[in-house]
Amino acid sequence: MGKTDWKARAKALKKDLKAMRTSQAPVAVAPKPAKSVSPLAPAGGFPALPRIAGASFAAVEAGVRYKNRRDVMLVHLAPGTTVAGVFTRSSTRAGCVRDCQAKLALKGTEAAGAAIVVNSGNSNAFTGAAGDRSVAEICAATATALNLPSARVFTSSTGVIGEPLPHDRITAALPALTAALTEDAIGLAAEAIMTTDTFPKGASAVVQTANGPVHIAGIAKGSGMIAPDMATMLVYIFTDARITAPSLQKVLSAQVGDTFNAITVDSDTSTSDALLLCATGQGPVVRGRGLATFATALKGVMLDLAIQVARDGEGATKLIEVRVSGAADAPDAHRVAMAIANSPLVKTAVAGEDPNWGRIVMAVGKSGAQADRDRLAIRFGDILVAENGARAAGYDEAQAAAYMKQPELVIAVDLGMGAATRTVWTCDLTHRYIDINADYRS
Amino acid sequence: MGKTDWKARAKALKKDLKAMRTSQAPVAVAPKPAKSVSPLAPAGGFPALPRIAGASFAAVEAGVRYKNRRDVMLVHLAPGTTVAGVFTRSSTRAGCVRDCQAKLALKGTEAAGAAIVVNSGNSNAFTGAAGDRSVAEICAATATALNLPSARVFTSSTGVIGEPLPHDRITAALPALTAALTEDAIGLAAEAIMTTDTFPKGASAVVQTANGPVHIAGIAKGSGMIAPDMATMLVYIFTDARITAPSLQKVLSAQVGDTFNAITVDSDTSTSDALLLCATGQGPVVRGRGLATFATALKGVMLDLAIQVARDGEGATKLIEVRVSGAADAPDAHRVAMAIANSPLVKTAVAGEDPNWGRIVMAVGKSGAQADRDRLAIRFGDILVAENGARAAGYDEAQAAAYMKQPELVIAVDLGMGAATRTVWTCDLTHRYIDINADYRS
Repeated sequence: MGKTDWKARAKALKKDLKAMRTSQAPVAVAPKPAKSVSPLAPAGGFPALPRIAGASFAAVEAGVRYKNRRDVMLVHLAPGTTVAGVFTRSSTRAGCVRDCQAKLALKGTEAAGAAIVVNSGNSNAFTGAAGDRSVAEICAATATALNLPSARVFTSSTGVIGEPLPHDRITAALPALTAALTEDAIGLAAEAIMTTDTFPKGASAVVQTANGPVHIAGIAKGSGMIAPDMATMLVYIFTDARITAPSLQKVLSAQVGDTFNAITVDSDTSTSDALLLCATGQGPVVRGRGLATFATALKGVMLDLAIQVARDGEGATKLIEVRVSGAADAPDAHRVAMAIANSPLVKTAVAGEDPNWGRIVMAVGKSGAQADRDRLAIRFGDILVAENGARAAGYDEAQAAAYMKQPELVIAVDLGMGAATRTVWTCDLTHRYIDINADYRS
Repeated sequence: MGKTDWKARAKALKKDLKAMRTSQAPVAVAPKPAKSVSPLAPAGGFPALPRIAGASFAAVEAGVRYKNRRDVMLVHLAPGTTVAGVFTRSSTRAGCVRDCQAKLALKGTEAAGAAIVVNSGNSNAFTGAAGDRSVAEICAATATALNLPSARVFTSSTGVIGEPLPHDRITAALPALTAALTEDAIGLAAEAIMTTDTFPKGASAVVQTANGPVHIAGIAKGSGMIAPDMATMLVYIFTDARITAPSLQKVLSAQVGDTFNAITVDSDTSTSDALLLCATGQGPVVRGRGLATFATALKGVMLDLAIQVARDGEGATKLIEVRVSGAADAPDAHRVAMAIANSPLVKTAVAGEDPNWGRIVMAVGKSGAQADRDRLAIRFGDILVAENGARAAGYDEAQAAAYMKQPELVIAVDLGMGAATRTVWTCDLTHRYIDINADYRS
């Protein structure tokens, strides 16, 4: 396929996209809710997300594993779209993750546009050479269908680990997917990537820049095996901003630490975590000082999606915000926050609405961070529970027990050792987590 | 109290103890079982333990927190007893742990004998200056009752963290405890230190040395908050060997890594972990090459007790042995073994009898150890599940599912990176763990 073909295709696509860009009204596609939605799901259901000029979506039932639900999504991105990504650092990460990483390392490929294909139900992880071939087959078929180079097709798979992926079911769905592509279907895409999620996750922002408004819309999936190490689970964020690929990657990487790397459901890190940020370039140019404004808005979208993942933690009935202050340094602050957020004993106590702050003391103690029993202060929300190495003088167990009945809790720990802080989010550990995971594959 | 008093007392005690040493028949005190005993409890109940000359035991109901059960134990150790210990490295460890550590640092104190006082129901951890005073009060009262220096009274407390300890209930029980002291009551002591344990834990060994037989008997408690970091929970081991304090400490410290530091129930490290090893010196001298023989027997007792703790993991229905081989180095082997043993997803899959080996791949991946997807091999018992980066060619899911129905499972992982190995023990994660811990304090 010659260069001219790409140019012609790009022109045609640009024309199409320009026509589609006339309306910027919010998209109102509400995916159908799962059987038993997390009690922590955002009120109002899936949010209205702005259309992103140059990004169109489709989702269909391909029957990869699940029946009677959409399980494959396709995103088509206009020529000129720059793509940035962050991925799991797992040493057993899936072939599709390695494939995305290799493709993002290529420079100057944006002229052709891009595509993202994601299936749920099977993660195609630890499937060896056959799994790598599945990725290649899906990329090649998508490239043909959309007249793109394979190098610009990014794939993710999420679901059971170690089962061969029936990739033919995905490639067989491509005609239906390409036919259904529309800027309005981001909500259906959010639904198609769900596994044990109980609700689809979306978030957006509109930033005013010197060159006009920039739109950001993102979707995520994730519920269990959540202890991101670099990025988390599957997250796709789209913007119409015109940003160079290196700037896009820099902005994205800078926001991951305080957003997706600040949540945990069960301390288990996925083999498939992937976050792709795509800038279609159909809207205003963003560079220089505009990047900081864009970064702030992007961080807001990322944090919103990350907290939605914690809200949909497998079996969750409580959202827990762990705030650590007074740590000797940043790694210590993170260590303490994660020791609390990952402690099965803290999480079961929260599930039982028991203000069992002794377990927070335990988690601080085991974290390995510098700590001193007599300088530690612990709060549930605004309630001072412990200080000076013992229970606080005015501590009222009944008041703390009443606080624990709320669906959203803050556990605040001040170490009194320095000035470093860290906030992370997690959920409680309930019977439902066991139910979901004791028979996940059956 | 003058030095002469101690000598007279020591002489009297030695005489008493000599009289008691006539019988070395096994003690057959079977503590009453808990309401619902772990299905993994050793067959045959509490084992027959040999009497240890110079060590006498008592346990009574003091009503510290629990009703209608023994909750305080006292051990009285003959003059000349050397004591060694290992303790949690938690930065929020309890006052009684710090007190034991300070006392073990004193040299040349063994002439007076020693005592150990342990209560269950309240850990006296994170109880500030008041907690330290409670430790001092218990030690002083015990010292008076047994005519010992306070510096030779070691205490432990286990149970809820952060509640003031009603130490007067313990000191009030001292007359009854001292009156009940007998070499036969080690089983009652094992019962008195239980919290969420469903069975008392004991193990023993008899080693033949050039100077005659050496007896070792030990007891332990532990069920939840088990991720030992140095020692674990409460463990008391007694021997009639005559060993110097430095040798005793050296032998003890060398065995901890492969025994108590090789088990985990829930990745949460206690504030109160303590292991005391007491050598009464009433039996043969052990030194030089005899130390190696003694160390091997001691390791057997420690491993037996450690695995009993894993068997009694809160809510456990399966005992899991995780064997890692082929790691690049020892820290990597430990990291991978613990990543698997602590993974909530691996443990819930085992609870559901699901051979979900993909989660083992995940745990290897997240561990941070050097690993290569294509060199990894995974086995359930003798069943080869995965190799060469994918499911093994002859893998039979029905056969693996049948294997998972057994109460004791081996998960073996070969990393193919080097020669380091590590074996650790854990249990599955079930509804019962949630039940126990969601309302532990109520």
